[in-house]
Amino acid sequence: MFDAKLETAKIIQFIKDYFDNNRLYGAIIGLSGGKDSTIAAALMVEALGKDRVTGVTLPCHSKSEDATDAKRIANHLGIEVINFDLTKTFDTFKEGMAEFVGDEKECINSDINLKPRLRMAALYYLSALYSAKKAKTYIVVGTSNKSEIFVGYYTKGGDSVSDIRPLGDLSKEEVVMIGDYLNLPYDLVHKTPSDGLSALSDEEKMGVSYLDIAKYMEDPSLLEEKTRDKIRHLHESSLHKLHTATYQKDQ
Amino acid sequence: MFDAKLETAKIIQFIKDYFDNNRLYGAIIGLSGGKDSTIAAALMVEALGKDRVTGVTLPCHSKSEDATDAKRIANHLGIEVINFDLTKTFDTFKEGMAEFVGDEKECINSDINLKPRLRMAALYYLSALYSAKKAKTYIVVGTSNKSEIFVGYYTKGGDSVSDIRPLGDLSKEEVVMIGDYLNLPYDLVHKTPSDGLSALSDEEKMGVSYLDIAKYMEDPSLLEEKTRDKIRHLHESSLHKLHTATYQKDQ
Repeated sequence: MFDAKLETAKIIQFIKDYFDNNRLYGAIIGLSGGKDSTIAAALMVEALGKDRVTGVTLPCHSKSEDATDAKRIANHLGIEVINFDLTKTFDTFKEGMAEFVGDEKECINSDINLKPRLRMAALYYLSALYSAKKAKTYIVVGTSNKSEIFVGYYTKGGDSVSDIRPLGDLSKEEVVMIGDYLNLPYDLVHKTPSDGLSALSDEEKMGVSYLDIAKYMEDPSLLEEKTRDKIRHLHESSLHKLHTATYQKDQ
Repeated sequence: MFDAKLETAKIIQFIKDYFDNNRLYGAIIGLSGGKDSTIAAALMVEALGKDRVTGVTLPCHSKSEDATDAKRIANHLGIEVINFDLTKTFDTFKEGMAEFVGDEKECINSDINLKPRLRMAALYYLSALYSAKKAKTYIVVGTSNKSEIFVGYYTKGGDSVSDIRPLGDLSKEEVVMIGDYLNLPYDLVHKTPSDGLSALSDEEKMGVSYLDIAKYMEDPSLLEEKTRDKIRHLHESSLHKLHTATYQKDQ
């Protein structure tokens, strides 16, 4: 049984230890308005105090509600929040690419993954900038949870690139339990997960529910064969994202 | 003793096997004009044939000689080469960041690392675009060698993100031997390594020579204490780049 109180305390200690042992000072975290970044930010504040955490909203042709929710959580936690709009950068990049694109449909996948890659670049830019400004080391917080990582629901070179991942071993359901334990705004913690890039929810996009992913990670035999196969396929076909095929001399 | 002929054959087989086993078709590779991308591109062509390899020049406020050398190698290999100038994207990104920057000196580090991150985003954009266009899967080739990886001379979320790394287990000296074995243009294979982003060579930036790094990886006792300490420090202080500190429930 998942003990939200105990796990919360252990995660906070893990963050403190990592910062102390590596003489780090501050954390830069992208706030999407979704539950993962909301709860990860709250844990960082519990561990480091509100003055050492900076939230960043990174709109890129995005829905404005997401930025509003992100600001709400930043205010709730009492942390600094800055806004870096990536829309113009995205558009300039796309203009440069135009000569290689025949039909706009060809770049649907390219566009979807460009956004998290630009967000990653922005978070690392700010992390190095704050480190220089304050002469103290800042790092980038990753907000992926175990369920998303398991089925490959992330962008290689995008949201998968970070320095510390407080939620990396928790299922989506466990993340929610921590959010409730920390008394974070109910509607943010229980918001339908979505990447904010399309009208579809995460579960609609993946074709499986987070609850089924959690069950699979616990014990695949809990699921019907069809769901089990779907999740196994998502998992196996995404493993290449974690890995760079590297030639080894003595193979 | 390093056998360039044997290793070249083994690398080519490794690339072929990886593409066959994963039903991949094409390779997208950034051509900097430097020896690593030159030699990695040549190996990809040996393995896949020239029609399945696309070289990309990615200038970003760069020296024009580098793009010229990159085009020379592409012509030598007979591969398609496309140019995607990132200068405007870089500048647009910087304009958006301006409000957070007090003194330009604060963003020296941020700027240096933004370029390889934008290049990574461009290579993956093109890889997905070509995959859609040709209905066959393209992947991104990484050009890092073992010496650079060992001392952390790369950008996390930048040139370190790729799908296949043919040179990943070779020292800089071994890479050169393969370039000579493949009869690639002498001046490109023996060019002084530099990131093309500043006036300094790689060795000047790192403060150690590639030959000393190779010796250290072979047997640290071959080196004087001062050099040994310097390389150990570079190695140890860069290990965090390979790693994301991830909370584990049962720790």
